[in-house]
Amino acid sequence: MASIAARPTRREQRREETIREIQVLAMQQVAADGPDAVSLNAIARTMAMSPAAIYRYFDSRDALLADLVVTYYDALADALQAATGEWEKPVDQLVALARATRRWALDNPNPYRLIFHTSSGSGQDLAPERTIPASSRSMDVMLGVLAGVASTASDGGASGRDNERLDAQLRAWAARSRLPDLPTRVLELGLICWTRLHGVVSLELGHHLASTGIDPALLYEAEIHMLIREAAGADPR
Amino acid sequence: MASIAARPTRREQRREETIREIQVLAMQQVAADGPDAVSLNAIARTMAMSPAAIYRYFDSRDALLADLVVTYYDALADALQAATGEWEKPVDQLVALARATRRWALDNPNPYRLIFHTSSGSGQDLAPERTIPASSRSMDVMLGVLAGVASTASDGGASGRDNERLDAQLRAWAARSRLPDLPTRVLELGLICWTRLHGVVSLELGHHLASTGIDPALLYEAEIHMLIREAAGADPR
Repeated sequence: MASIAARPTRREQRREETIREIQVLAMQQVAADGPDAVSLNAIARTMAMSPAAIYRYFDSRDALLADLVVTYYDALADALQAATGEWEKPVDQLVALARATRRWALDNPNPYRLIFHTSSGSGQDLAPERTIPASSRSMDVMLGVLAGVASTASDGGASGRDNERLDAQLRAWAARSRLPDLPTRVLELGLICWTRLHGVVSLELGHHLASTGIDPALLYEAEIHMLIREAAGADPR
Repeated sequence: MASIAARPTRREQRREETIREIQVLAMQQVAADGPDAVSLNAIARTMAMSPAAIYRYFDSRDALLADLVVTYYDALADALQAATGEWEKPVDQLVALARATRRWALDNPNPYRLIFHTSSGSGQDLAPERTIPASSRSMDVMLGVLAGVASTASDGGASGRDNERLDAQLRAWAARSRLPDLPTRVLELGLICWTRLHGVVSLELGHHLASTGIDPALLYEAEIHMLIREAAGADPR
């Protein structure tokens, strides 16, 4: 009976609980002192474990960070999939995806900072074999939606310029990240969508938009509107 | 003789030197452990001062951070002014301004993080009366350039929508920040330019673009090109 065989042992359950507790404490450090403050030794002290014991759960600080990064990239991708799944028209899906990105960031400021305001989230410095596939899930959703919005009649990149170097790099990136095979114009739009939404959200999280007195939601909606026009290739006014 | 009367006393010189040393140590903390790690007490220990003594130089951690934020906003504004001053045509000035923004960030990653990846730079949490005028200097340069690029024939916001709420907030922001009196379309473009450039630069600094294998300079140039089309109101393709 598979259901009984698959049930975790008491020992495994304890291990899972300990791992979750370590992750919760790590995110408390992110919340209190920023993403750079995460320390396995400090977590071990809080849990009254020996420094050696905690390494039975995570080989290194980087392994813990990679785990957190993958967890939160997955959560973000889930949120984006759920939001776009509620709509049929690509334009509505793009609006829903953009709003869900901001909503997720505001609801999860510390995970957002961990992923986007440190090099941990890029996978360069820790475990690219885990973090790149995780981050690609969100990009998959974004590219699928943009492919629907983008005017297929258009040639050239989103930026309207022939740029063979950029096109070659976009194709290599899509292949390496196992992203769908799409026109380079759509791949470029995916990156531009990603950087633009991040630009507003990141400054909102740092209270930079609060200091202007401008409602970030209004600026964000304006940027979504411009993104749609950019993707659809319509007149920008 | 004014030149002699204005010369700082030996005591004043020492005070200036101590303040500079505190600022250098604070930026070393930013570099090592992120912007949240700045600690007056840790700086006092490094300088072999009593915790009480360091408060004769900075009333609080926030006062030190405000000083640093103002210093770096000024440095950024100087860089932008110098870059745009070399050109006559507004479009060339906008390209120069955007490139200078990225160049400054790459040359000054820790000041950039301090200003843009924390709430310190927004002035909300420390000294808005000092940080807002300092940050407005860069925005002044950006708005001046954008006003030259923007099609004055266009009505409505940059986003192409009538949005009375956003327009009212843009006017209030410009008045409060003592920004030039410009059409709301240009004010909106200023914010959009700011968030878009920040979006690319911020992800580049976190090595997120390195993990895609795409040259950030190429993506940045593409975004500059789209910004110019957005500002000029031309067809986006």
